[in-house]
Order: sequence, then C-alpha cells, then structure tokens
Amino acid sequence: MAISKADKRDKFLAVFERIREELINHMKSENMPEDAVTWFNENLVYNVPGGKLNRGISVVDTVAILLNRPLTDDEYFKAALLGWCIELLQAFFLVSDDMMDASISRRGQPCWYRVHDVKGLGKVHNIAINDSFMLEGAIYHLLKTHFRRESYYVDLLELFQEVTYKTEMGQLVDLITAPEENIDIRKYNLDKHTFIVRYKTAFYSFYLSVALAMRMCGVPDVYEINGKTIEAYKEADRILIPMGEFFQVQDDYLDYHGTEAEIGKIGTDIVDGKCSWCVCTALTHGTEAQKQLLYENYGKKGADQAVREQAVKDMYNDEQGLNIPRRYEEYQKKAVADINAMIDQVPEPGAHEVGKGNRLRRDAFRAFLSKITDRKA
Amino acid sequence: MAISKADKRDKFLAVFERIREELINHMKSENMPEDAVTWFNENLVYNVPGGKLNRGISVVDTVAILLNRPLTDDEYFKAALLGWCIELLQAFFLVSDDMMDASISRRGQPCWYRVHDVKGLGKVHNIAINDSFMLEGAIYHLLKTHFRRESYYVDLLELFQEVTYKTEMGQLVDLITAPEENIDIRKYNLDKHTFIVRYKTAFYSFYLSVALAMRMCGVPDVYEINGKTIEAYKEADRILIPMGEFFQVQDDYLDYHGTEAEIGKIGTDIVDGKCSWCVCTALTHGTEAQKQLLYENYGKKGADQAVREQAVKDMYNDEQGLNIPRRYEEYQKKAVADINAMIDQVPEPGAHEVGKGNRLRRDAFRAFLSKITDRKA
Ligand SMILES: [Mg+2]
Ligand SMILES: [Mg+2]
Ligand SMILES: [Mg+2]
Ligand SMILES: [Mg+2]
Ligand SMILES: [Mg+2]
Ligand SMILES: [Mg+2]
Repeated sequence: MAISKADKRDKFLAVFERIREELINHMKSENMPEDAVTWFNENLVYNVPGGKLNRGISVVDTVAILLNRPLTDDEYFKAALLGWCIELLQAFFLVSDDMMDASISRRGQPCWYRVHDVKGLGKVHNIAINDSFMLEGAIYHLLKTHFRRESYYVDLLELFQEVTYKTEMGQLVDLITAPEENIDIRKYNLDKHTFIVRYKTAFYSFYLSVALAMRMCGVPDVYEINGKTIEAYKEADRILIPMGEFFQVQDDYLDYHGTEAEIGKIGTDIVDGKCSWCVCTALTHGTEAQKQLLYENYGKKGADQAVREQAVKDMYNDEQGLNIPRRYEEYQKKAVADINAMIDQVPEPGAHEVGKGNRLRRDAFRAFLSKITDRKA
Repeated sequence: MAISKADKRDKFLAVFERIREELINHMKSENMPEDAVTWFNENLVYNVPGGKLNRGISVVDTVAILLNRPLTDDEYFKAALLGWCIELLQAFFLVSDDMMDASISRRGQPCWYRVHDVKGLGKVHNIAINDSFMLEGAIYHLLKTHFRRESYYVDLLELFQEVTYKTEMGQLVDLITAPEENIDIRKYNLDKHTFIVRYKTAFYSFYLSVALAMRMCGVPDVYEINGKTIEAYKEADRILIPMGEFFQVQDDYLDYHGTEAEIGKIGTDIVDGKCSWCVCTALTHGTEAQKQLLYENYGKKGADQAVREQAVKDMYNDEQGLNIPRRYEEYQKKAVADINAMIDQVPEPGAHEVGKGNRLRRDAFRAFLSKITDRKA
C-alpha cells in the first residue's frame, strides 16, 4: 500500500501549483503591471518544478519519519511548502550558476538566461540575474505567510539564510579555483575540493531538508536522553555534511569510471578540467612525472582531447601506480562506515517519546544514506 | 558644537572597518581558502563604502531624533551597523544592476564586474553575480551576530527581506519596461513610473532607514496617543514612500531642466530613453502630434541626437503646450504639501513619553524631507 514514487511526486507537484498562485496573487495585490506578473510567472514555471525534486520531497519524507505516522493534510502542506522553498533556493542557485558558467542547457531546455522570448515580452539575457533574486525572495515571502505564528519561524529564517550564505561561499571558491576558461590545476587540492563540495552542495542538498523537518517537528537545539546531551542540529550537520561530501566524491568517481549505461551520460570532467576528487587525489599522491602528465593533459580541449583524456584515465587506472579505483574503494568503505557509526550513536527516543516526533531518529539519516549507496557503482 | 558632516561620515566609516574585519574573520573561521578570503575582502572594500552613505547615516540620525539625546557608544554602534546593512543591500543592488545595465563605471571607478584583476586572482566578470549575493548574505550574518538576542530581531529580518523583495519587483518592472537596448516608449505610463520608483528605490532608500531605527528604538507596531490609534510602520510607509517618489520625480525633472552647475552633471535621460516622469507626463497629457514627436525623437542615439533632444526639450518647455515646468511646479507643490500634512498629523508623544524614544516623532520625517527640498531646483 506504499505510495508509488510517481504518485508522491505528483502530490508534491500539486502543492507547487498552490504556491505559484499565491506568489502571483501577491504580485497582483501589490499592483505590479501585468506584463511583469506574466514574466514572474514564467520565471517560476520555467525554473522551479522541472528537476528531480529529491531535496524538496526529502523534507516530507523526514517529517514522516520523525513523526512516525502518516501526516495530516495540514502537516503535509507545510512540509511540502518547506520542500518547495528548497527547490526555490536551488532554482536561485541554478539560474545564476548557468550564467556564471555560460552553460547552454539545463534539465533538457535552454538555460533561462538564453530564452529568446518570454511570452512576447522580449529576451531574458541579464534580466535572469534579477529573476534569480526573485526566486530567493519568494522563499521569505512564503515563510512569512505560512510560518509567522510558529515558535520556530525565526529558526527557519536563519536556516535558509545560513545555508544560502554557505552555498555562496562554496560557489566563490569554486569560481576562482576552477574558472571555466582559465583552468590551472595547480590551484587544485583536496582541501579546496572538500570546502567546495561541502559548502556549495552539501549544506543545501543534504543538511537543509533534514534540519527544516526537524524544526517543523519541534526538535529542540539541545535535549537529553539517558543522561546523554544531544545537540540535535550539530549532530545532523556532523552526519549529513560528510554524507553530502561522499555523494559528490562518488559523483566525481563515476564521471571517470562509470559507463554510460551506469550513469546515464558520458563523463566529461577530465576534458572540462573539473576540480574533481580524482584529480585532487592524483595531485596529492602522484609523483612529479604523474603530475606533469596531468598538467599537460587535464582540461585540454581540442582535436586531441580524446587521446589526452585516455592518457589521464590510463594513469588513474594503473594498478601499479595511482590506482584511483583502489583509492576510491578505500575512501568509500571508510566514508560509509564512519557515517553509519555516527548514525548508530544517535540515541533513539524512548517509546513514550516517539509519538511526539521531536527527537532525532536514526531512520531519518538511514533513509538518506540508502538513497546514495543504492546509486550505481 | 554640532558634529560636522565630514566627521559624521568618518565616524560612520570607522564602523565599516570593524564590520569588514568581522566578516573576514568569519570566513577564516569557516576555513575558506585564503585566495577566496582575499577576493571577498576586495568585494567588500570595492563595493560597499564608496557612496554618499546617506541611507546608512540616516539610521543613526533617526535613532538620535527618536531618542532625543546623544547615543551611547553601544547605541551608536548598533545604529551604524544597521546603517551598514543598508549599504550592503545597496551594494548588492548596484553590483548586479550594473551588470544588467551593462554600465561602464560607478562612483568614479570601473563597475566591479569590469575589474580585470583582483589581487592577481583573475578577472571578476560574471563572478560578480555571486559576489553580489555575498554582499546580501553578509547582512543576515551581521544581524544574527549582533541582534539575535533582541526582541525585535525577527522584525529586522522581515524588514530586510520585504524591502529586498520589493526592490527586486521594481527592478523587474524597470528592466522589462525600459530595456537598455530595445526602447519602446509606448510601454511607458505614469502608473508604471510610480511602481518602478516606489518599489525600486523608495522602499530601500527612504522607508528602510527610518523603519530600522524605529525597531531599534522599540517603536511598537500599534500604540495609542490621546485615544488615537497609531499604526507606526504603516504611518512611516505612508509618509516616506511618497517622499521617495517625490525625490525621484525631482531627479527626473532636474535631469531635463537643471543646468550642469545646478545638478553637477549633464542630463542624458532624453537621449538614453529613460522612463522618466517627464516623458510619462508628456505621454499622458500630450496630443497625438506631440506623442508622435516623442516616438520619433525620444531615446534615439546617433549623429543627430542633439537635435532630437532639443526638439523634445522645446516641446516640454512650450508654455502654450505641454509646459512640463508648470506641471512639475504643480506636482511639487502638491507633493510637498501632502507630505507635510501627513507629517503634521503624526501625534507627538507626551512629555513623559519622549524620553523612552519608542514613539514616532515628526522631526524624524522632517529631517528627511528637508534634505530633499534643500536640493537644487
Ligand atoms: Mg554550472
Ligand atoms: Mg558553476
Ligand atoms: Mg559530476
Ligand atoms: Mg543602472
Ligand atoms: Mg538598471
Ligand atoms: Mg536621474
């Protein structure tokens, strides 16, 4: 009787329709001219709901795990609304990231800034900058409308602000470490890789949905179980940020080592010169000669790019040399073991506390981790 | 013994130094790589303190008026910090606006996105988008650090968020009504002009500083004086938004009618095709023939731009025809009278209430209005 993944998605998408209407009606109530209302509506429809929605739906899933029972309609709506706020945040990041990266397409359509005509009102181009701002601004309008009277309202505001600032910090380091058109892999190292991955991705993709669900369920900052003091949000951070990091390392590894059948695309990180876990690992552990090979062949586009890419892959693969697959296996084993150990140390609430839903539960983290480890390898 | 304007500015600027250090130390404490810390520091120094600082200093001035006494060091610092948060917000808007407008320079230096090299770390270009985000993000970090324990903390957060969203709404209408490179004045009208001016400028330039000062002084949302109910923030909005609108109309008028000696620059709105109060008024009250003259000559750059500009100016000047100077005189008289009437209706606190500083006072608005009406005309 479990709800199917597609039904879950449809139910979540139905909430977006309500949110979109609410945001549009607000613009009308402020007497915004009609063409601008049309434009904002297109901005929302084009950029917000088209992704995988994993982050948003995770808020709903986590609330259900913490409460350990089916949600009421009101609870579902509130959790889904928080989920859509993450999707709005992500849209804000993606619309602007595509401009900064001069990307061509996103989710199977042209990037928003490349749209030639918005309902007869002209091209988007640099207006996309302000459009991205408005996607972010909508978050706080929604939070105010729906959560203002809740005791945890200020916690929600701070959570979004802090995660946003951290993501921007990660984006800055990414942008100056690996600028699209002036790649210098001498700047790469594992510390920077870790910073970028944690700040640019892990906070908003892993920590945020769980922390929002925890706030909504009333999980306090600090509580005791069996004489042990739990700092609940620090605990969630401690588990989820390494989990997000592991997710990205896996992504980097699969880009080089996964087949097209496995990962649904052909990896391009080596040719693109990405600051990937693989190249950072190679630069850390490689000999001078191996590093030299990278300087000469990594991130070099042109007629001979396939040859250069293969040279890098051969060096990564070399079982007598760098052996990136073995290093990845070791990393993965340790990362998953560490994360599991941290999850196992979370004290479960006693039987009389479970019903309130305001305590951390191991399943909230396990649900997340299994989504990742189930990925192709 | 009144402190000079220059000393006031220097004292305010000294607080920026503290704030900058605090923001930089925060980045270091998050283990941000050194080159990124250097970059963020440049972003702050280049974009935040170089303007007139009127908005920021107004917070300090308004707090002093409401309290009706010199500020303690701690009060000064807090008011100035709120003032710098407005300057950060403005920097966020200006850095991004310059990209959207493809502007060349700002405050006597190249626009940030056009800087070729940031301390040897490369050119800014589109990284300016994320840099603008970080200027905004810094606001909430500072508010959290310094105001978290205050009862009005959540009001500060909402104030910044709402004003930011409104400014973005005004920017959107401006961008699609008057796109730099595809001007169509048939889209212009006084309603749109009013919306753009109020949303894009008045909220953050006029309302925000007073409302922040009111929050800091503990002015409640609603109170009674002599049996009259005052909704303090709505009152401030009712007075300050038309004041901001008047300020912009005056700016538009002076661009066409002021001499270089009067306004310190040569107006370019007609040649640039700006959605100015003058052209919107002309389009509203003009005959078909007069509108035709605008369609043919307004916003047309090229060899004959001076001739076209003069044709528009002659039509504006025509005492038997459009007579924009007379219309402006009428507008100005009425606007100032209306604003003064609204200010006069604000009930002053009784003698026993003045000392607390948590009531609206007419002088707070008068100080603002006199700054505007003292401007050249
Ligand atoms: Mg990208
Ligand atoms: Mg990017
Ligand atoms: Mg990848
Ligand atoms: Mg501009
Ligand atoms: Mg502009
Ligand atoms: Mg002007």
